[in-house]
Amino acid sequence: VKLDAALADRVRSGEQVAIARMLTHVERRTAGVNEVLAELHRHTGAAHVLGVTGPPGSGKSTLVSALTARLREQDRSVGIIAVDPSSIFSGGAILGDRIRMSDLSGDPGVYIRSIATRGALGGLSRATLDAITVLDAAGMDVVVLETVGVGQAEVDVLSAAQSVAVVSVPGMGDDVQAIKAGLLEIADIHVVNKADRDGALKTVSELREVLRLAKRKAGQWNVPIQLTTATGGEGVPELVEQFDAHYAWMQQHGELERRARRNSATRIRWLAEEMILDRLRTGRPEFDEAVAEVTARRGDPMTAARRLVQQM
Amino acid sequence: VKLDAALADRVRSGEQVAIARMLTHVERRTAGVNEVLAELHRHTGAAHVLGVTGPPGSGKSTLVSALTARLREQDRSVGIIAVDPSSIFSGGAILGDRIRMSDLSGDPGVYIRSIATRGALGGLSRATLDAITVLDAAGMDVVVLETVGVGQAEVDVLSAAQSVAVVSVPGMGDDVQAIKAGLLEIADIHVVNKADRDGALKTVSELREVLRLAKRKAGQWNVPIQLTTATGGEGVPELVEQFDAHYAWMQQHGELERRARRNSATRIRWLAEEMILDRLRTGRPEFDEAVAEVTARRGDPMTAARRLVQQM
Repeated sequence: VKLDAALADRVRSGEQVAIARMLTHVERRTAGVNEVLAELHRHTGAAHVLGVTGPPGSGKSTLVSALTARLREQDRSVGIIAVDPSSIFSGGAILGDRIRMSDLSGDPGVYIRSIATRGALGGLSRATLDAITVLDAAGMDVVVLETVGVGQAEVDVLSAAQSVAVVSVPGMGDDVQAIKAGLLEIADIHVVNKADRDGALKTVSELREVLRLAKRKAGQWNVPIQLTTATGGEGVPELVEQFDAHYAWMQQHGELERRARRNSATRIRWLAEEMILDRLRTGRPEFDEAVAEVTARRGDPMTAARRLVQQM
Repeated sequence: VKLDAALADRVRSGEQVAIARMLTHVERRTAGVNEVLAELHRHTGAAHVLGVTGPPGSGKSTLVSALTARLREQDRSVGIIAVDPSSIFSGGAILGDRIRMSDLSGDPGVYIRSIATRGALGGLSRATLDAITVLDAAGMDVVVLETVGVGQAEVDVLSAAQSVAVVSVPGMGDDVQAIKAGLLEIADIHVVNKADRDGALKTVSELREVLRLAKRKAGQWNVPIQLTTATGGEGVPELVEQFDAHYAWMQQHGELERRARRNSATRIRWLAEEMILDRLRTGRPEFDEAVAEVTARRGDPMTAARRLVQQM
């Protein structure tokens, strides 16, 4: 599948081969990929973009599988993006794919892709946003973004989701983990997974206390706490209902529009930053000249930066 | 001490009150601070900028104190910048200052400042680079940058140092920590502190193995491993000699110039990024218009970003 205007059409018709190819172009930043993404962008906005995050061992992958199975029962198509910055070391993403593939492979209504960062986290964020564009334009009813909630970059990535579920497990002090990782502010739904374990209700009451302390303002979404046992599927239909309820609430309260604007702003900013960093690199004559000037103290960094920005 | 042209002169003459005041302006980004920094930049380049990093508990602060005491014996003035992103939580920086102050306070040849991040890590990096400019222009012979080597931002900050020492301690598996934290590539000198502890020689041989595997290329600096016991001062004179040897080596091999250029490039880039992010924020009419366009899908993020960058 070549990268040309026809690829956009093939992605839009939901062809799995075309989607796979396009996502590879996105990851590799193939020349011409931006033009296809621009075309695809015009056909986005129909998907409900979910974020699922939580610490390692919280059973996120199993939960996403169970969630997907439930959505398929309702005949909704699902695109899954597993963001795994550590996978180059752990091989985690690949393993995760294999496990899931055994359940979901062969289903034309499901598309799964792992995105591993090989370079900067900025690259990861960018590739993830573009992957959402591709899967949304491909007609997926639901796009699930699965991340390990550890770093700021991943929290940033989650801001591209419309509804974010933060997964905790009993007995790991994960409520505190969620606070530490800055995940509390981004949770639209709290999931306590492995609810059959001892301490599940304790975790629920701790989360409830945390939510109480955070003091919901009038007119804000009331963050629910959903118990699940992903391995057996318990609580998963209710979780799907929570996601749907959140979507409906956002539509009614202008929040969908607000998040879309925030998402547009983030995309524009990241792209502009990328362009600028491309111009401010060794080998560009005007940049090299500025560096030489500042190093020789004929000029100062601020004046040089101002001049370079004005020349853009 | 007001922020005006006279402040630059007072900083350059090494007045402690003026230095303190200027660093406060740097941290608060007082209006007009850039002009004074531009003036000070022209008078930098004489200081040897050292970086000292390592995990919490490795005795970095004590080592920096011992190092400073040794440099003072040689009648060299020392400026210390302790970068502590966690200090707002732990109070670590303030405590560290107090401990050190009891040894070094009252000595006009020593200036100590903690920089704690209150906002973004970008702000921390920027403030740290500017603090180096201030202390260098103030005539300090040596500027020591002390950081906890945990995040990418701190590794970035260390790239402003000319000679970086990475501190390990026996029995903590810190050599592996150094690799994990991306500190191996930036180490010009390895320090094994608390060398009186069991396992010091094991840590040395592990580091030696790591260095062997990293395969030094011909013409590269040969990274030494220095044992120290900072509390008693053992190995500290030798560490100072290692720093001096590294400086002499850099002068002879063009590395000082290369690092100066890299440092200039980083400063220009960070400042340009800051300017650009200031222009790409909500409330700026041309940005808000672009966001509205992309959200309504009348345009795509890439085209909008291109236009905004070209307008700058």
